[in-house]
Amino acid sequence: AGDPAKGKAKATTCAACHGANGISMIPNYPNLAGQKELYLVDAIKAYRDGTRKNPVMSPMAAALSDEDIANLAAYFSSLPAGG
Amino acid sequence: AGDPAKGKAKATTCAACHGANGISMIPNYPNLAGQKELYLVDAIKAYRDGTRKNPVMSPMAAALSDEDIANLAAYFSSLPAGG
Repeated sequence: AGDPAKGKAKATTCAACHGANGISMIPNYPNLAGQKELYLVDAIKAYRDGTRKNPVMSPMAAALSDEDIANLAAYFSSLPAGG
Repeated sequence: AGDPAKGKAKATTCAACHGANGISMIPNYPNLAGQKELYLVDAIKAYRDGTRKNPVMSPMAAALSDEDIANLAAYFSSLPAGG
Protein backbone atom coordinates (compact mmCIF):
# COMPACT_ATOMS: atom_id res chain seq x y z
CA ALA A 1 0.00 0.00 0.00
CA GLY A 2 1.05 3.62 -0.46
CA ASP A 3 2.27 6.20 2.04
CA PRO A 4 -0.45 8.69 2.97
CA ALA A 5 2.08 11.32 4.08
CA LYS A 6 3.82 11.23 0.71
CA GLY A 7 0.40 11.21 -0.91
CA LYS A 8 -0.60 14.35 0.95
CA ALA A 9 2.52 16.12 -0.25
CA LYS A 10 1.62 15.14 -3.82
CA ALA A 11 -2.09 16.01 -3.50
CA THR A 12 -1.95 19.80 -3.76
CA THR A 13 -3.05 19.81 -7.39
CA CYS A 14 -5.73 17.18 -6.76
CA ALA A 15 -7.10 19.18 -3.82
CA ALA A 16 -7.82 22.13 -6.11
CA CYS A 17 -10.82 20.20 -7.48
CA HIS A 18 -11.30 17.29 -5.09
CA GLY A 19 -10.99 19.46 -1.97
CA ALA A 20 -8.27 19.65 0.68
CA ASN A 21 -10.40 17.26 2.75
CA GLY A 22 -11.22 15.10 -0.26
CA ILE A 23 -14.73 16.49 -0.65
CA SER A 24 -15.05 17.92 -4.12
CA MET A 25 -16.02 21.54 -4.69
CA ILE A 26 -17.44 20.77 -8.12
CA PRO A 27 -20.79 18.94 -8.33
CA ASN A 28 -19.79 16.41 -10.98
CA TYR A 29 -16.28 15.79 -9.66
CA PRO A 30 -16.14 12.88 -7.23
CA ASN A 31 -15.43 13.04 -3.54
CA LEU A 32 -12.31 10.99 -2.79
CA ALA A 33 -12.31 11.03 1.02
CA GLY A 34 -12.73 7.55 2.45
CA GLN A 35 -12.98 6.00 -1.01
CA LYS A 36 -11.62 2.47 -1.46
CA GLU A 37 -7.82 2.65 -1.85
CA LEU A 38 -7.62 -0.01 -4.58
CA TYR A 39 -10.47 1.63 -6.50
CA LEU A 40 -8.60 4.93 -6.47
CA VAL A 41 -5.45 3.20 -7.76
CA ASP A 42 -7.45 1.51 -10.54
CA ALA A 43 -9.22 4.74 -11.50
CA ILE A 44 -6.08 6.89 -11.68
CA LYS A 45 -4.25 4.19 -13.64
CA ALA A 46 -7.21 3.97 -16.04
CA TYR A 47 -6.83 7.71 -16.71
CA ARG A 48 -3.08 7.25 -17.12
CA ASP A 49 -3.33 4.34 -19.56
CA GLY A 50 -6.29 5.81 -21.44
CA THR A 51 -8.96 3.23 -20.61
CA ARG A 52 -10.73 6.15 -18.99
CA LYS A 53 -10.62 9.41 -20.90
CA ASN A 54 -11.18 12.80 -19.33
CA PRO A 55 -9.80 16.13 -20.53
CA VAL A 56 -8.80 17.14 -16.99
CA MET A 57 -7.79 13.83 -15.41
CA SER A 58 -5.90 12.29 -18.35
CA PRO A 59 -3.05 14.86 -18.36
CA MET A 60 -3.01 14.88 -14.55
CA ALA A 61 -2.59 11.12 -14.37
CA ALA A 62 -0.07 11.02 -17.21
CA ALA A 63 2.51 12.69 -14.97
CA LEU A 64 2.14 10.20 -12.11
CA SER A 65 4.34 7.19 -11.32
CA ASP A 66 2.98 3.98 -9.82
CA GLU A 67 4.40 5.12 -6.47
CA ASP A 68 2.69 8.52 -6.74
CA ILE A 69 -0.61 6.79 -7.49
CA ALA A 70 -0.24 4.37 -4.56
CA ASN A 71 0.57 7.27 -2.21
CA LEU A 72 -2.29 9.47 -3.45
CA ALA A 73 -4.76 6.58 -3.12
CA ALA A 74 -3.50 5.83 0.39
CA TYR A 75 -3.85 9.49 1.32
CA PHE A 76 -7.36 10.14 0.04
CA SER A 77 -8.72 6.81 1.27
CA SER A 78 -7.35 7.68 4.71
CA LEU A 79 -9.39 10.89 4.91
CA PRO A 80 -12.68 10.70 6.84
CA ALA A 81 -15.53 9.97 4.41
CA GLY A 82 -17.85 12.95 4.25
CA GLY A 83 -15.06 15.35 5.22
CA ALA B 1 -32.73 15.53 -9.47
CA GLY B 2 -33.81 11.95 -8.97
CA ASP B 3 -36.05 10.37 -6.35
CA PRO B 4 -34.03 8.59 -3.61
CA ALA B 5 -36.98 6.36 -2.66
CA LYS B 6 -37.35 5.10 -6.21
CA GLY B 7 -33.58 4.77 -6.35
CA LYS B 8 -33.56 2.62 -3.25
CA ALA B 9 -36.15 0.29 -4.82
CA LYS B 10 -33.93 -0.02 -7.88
CA ALA B 11 -30.67 -0.45 -5.93
CA THR B 12 -30.99 -4.09 -4.84
CA THR B 13 -28.64 -5.32 -7.55
CA CYS B 14 -26.19 -2.47 -6.97
CA ALA B 15 -26.13 -3.16 -3.23
CA ALA B 16 -24.84 -6.68 -3.86
CA CYS B 17 -21.42 -5.17 -4.63
CA HIS B 18 -21.64 -1.57 -3.46
CA GLY B 19 -23.22 -2.49 -0.12
CA ALA B 20 -26.73 -1.88 1.23
CA ASN B 21 -25.33 1.24 2.90
CA GLY B 22 -23.31 2.21 -0.14
CA ILE B 23 -20.01 1.02 1.31
CA SER B 24 -18.55 -1.54 -1.04
CA MET B 25 -17.71 -5.06 0.14
CA ILE B 26 -15.08 -5.47 -2.56
CA PRO B 27 -11.75 -3.63 -2.17
CA ASN B 28 -11.54 -2.28 -5.72
CA TYR B 29 -15.23 -1.47 -6.10
CA PRO B 30 -16.05 2.11 -5.12
CA ASN B 31 -18.06 3.23 -2.15
CA LEU B 32 -21.07 5.18 -3.40
CA ALA B 33 -22.49 6.51 -0.11
CA GLY B 34 -22.38 10.31 0.01
CA GLN B 35 -20.76 10.51 -3.42
CA LYS B 36 -21.60 13.54 -5.58
CA GLU B 37 -25.01 12.96 -7.23
CA LEU B 38 -24.01 14.44 -10.62
CA TYR B 39 -20.78 12.44 -10.62
CA LEU B 40 -22.75 9.24 -10.09
CA VAL B 41 -25.07 10.17 -12.97
CA ASP B 42 -22.07 10.86 -15.23
CA ALA B 43 -20.31 7.64 -14.24
CA ILE B 44 -23.32 5.35 -14.76
CA LYS B 45 -24.10 7.03 -18.09
CA ALA B 46 -20.47 6.56 -19.14
CA TYR B 47 -20.82 2.83 -18.51
CA ARG B 48 -24.11 2.84 -20.41
CA ASP B 49 -22.79 4.69 -23.46
CA GLY B 50 -19.45 2.85 -23.45
CA THR B 51 -17.09 5.73 -22.71
CA ARG B 52 -16.25 3.73 -19.60
CA LYS B 53 -15.88 0.00 -20.11
CA ASN B 54 -16.20 -2.55 -17.33
CA PRO B 55 -17.27 -6.17 -17.66
CA VAL B 56 -19.58 -5.90 -14.64
CA MET B 57 -20.85 -2.32 -14.85
CA SER B 58 -21.43 -2.09 -18.61
CA PRO B 59 -24.23 -4.68 -18.74
CA MET B 60 -25.68 -3.33 -15.47
CA ALA B 61 -25.86 0.20 -16.83
CA ALA B 62 -27.16 -0.90 -20.23
CA ALA B 63 -30.49 -1.82 -18.65
CA LEU B 64 -31.02 1.54 -16.96
CA SER B 65 -33.14 4.47 -18.17
CA ASP B 66 -32.20 8.08 -17.55
CA GLU B 67 -34.81 8.15 -14.78
CA ASP B 68 -33.38 5.01 -13.16
CA ILE B 69 -29.93 6.58 -13.22
CA ALA B 70 -31.15 9.85 -11.71
CA ASN B 71 -32.98 7.96 -8.95
CA LEU B 72 -30.03 5.67 -8.16
CA ALA B 73 -27.66 8.64 -8.04
CA ALA B 74 -30.06 10.52 -5.75
CA TYR B 75 -30.35 7.48 -3.49
CA PHE B 76 -26.65 6.65 -3.08
CA SER B 77 -25.62 10.30 -2.73
CA SER B 78 -28.20 10.64 0.04
CA LEU B 79 -26.61 7.87 2.11
CA PRO B 80 -24.25 8.98 4.89
CA ALA B 81 -20.68 8.97 3.58
CA GLY B 82 -18.67 6.31 5.36
CA GLY B 83 -21.77 4.21 6.05
